[in-house]
Amino acid sequence: MKKVNLTDAFDSFDEQWSPRLAGELNGQEVKLAKVEGEFVWHQHDDADELFFVHSGELTIQFRDEPDVHLEAGEFVVVPRGVEHRPVADEEAQILLFEPRGTKNTGDVDSELTQTAEKRLE
Amino acid sequence: MKKVNLTDAFDSFDEQWSPRLAGELNGQEVKLAKVEGEFVWHQHDDADELFFVHSGELTIQFRDEPDVHLEAGEFVVVPRGVEHRPVADEEAQILLFEPRGTKNTGDVDSELTQTAEKRLE
Repeated sequence: MKKVNLTDAFDSFDEQWSPRLAGELNGQEVKLAKVEGEFVWHQHDDADELFFVHSGELTIQFRDEPDVHLEAGEFVVVPRGVEHRPVADEEAQILLFEPRGTKNTGDVDSELTQTAEKRLE
Repeated sequence: MKKVNLTDAFDSFDEQWSPRLAGELNGQEVKLAKVEGEFVWHQHDDADELFFVHSGELTIQFRDEPDVHLEAGEFVVVPRGVEHRPVADEEAQILLFEPRGTKNTGDVDSELTQTAEKRLE
């Protein structure tokens, strides 16, 4: 049973918009990502998605309701089927919680689509 | 869509060993708990359980392998069927992630067993 230290884990990679698998339980995955700038608008038809901010700030934009702005130590759950776009003015370190195999760009194919799962080293 | 600020959420209750439901997704629950002292030895036969420490320190004891000591910003997943006991010398604030309806004392009935779900106010 191996613990994960979030600060050490985030120090272990630099690539942005490229989630690293950090844990698995009950068919769900814990992923860590560094993000900066605007992601693509997308939705997950079969997956609720939790965003937790470890450092920095993250705004999640929605089409039909107010943005949610997260600072370090805050989380929100985006329900399945809700179109959203994560945006960060400066680099943020975030933790994602979602079902195993959830595609990062959801229903959209983009140059940001992650095609192979990457694990923490 | 309502975000949760962990510090504010932990400030909203005092009771120890009494998890508060803070979020739900994909049949899983995010719970927040204040813990101090020794919990009961137990296991969850059908639930993997994630422990994340928000503040303080938490040791998770196991029968057959080394303890895992968690400080703030660290997490570990305890697989289903593994007997464990959380222990904290001083109060720790922890986040739990586990399937909806998971009983806090698992296969054991104890005075610490939580019989009704409590939500954040």
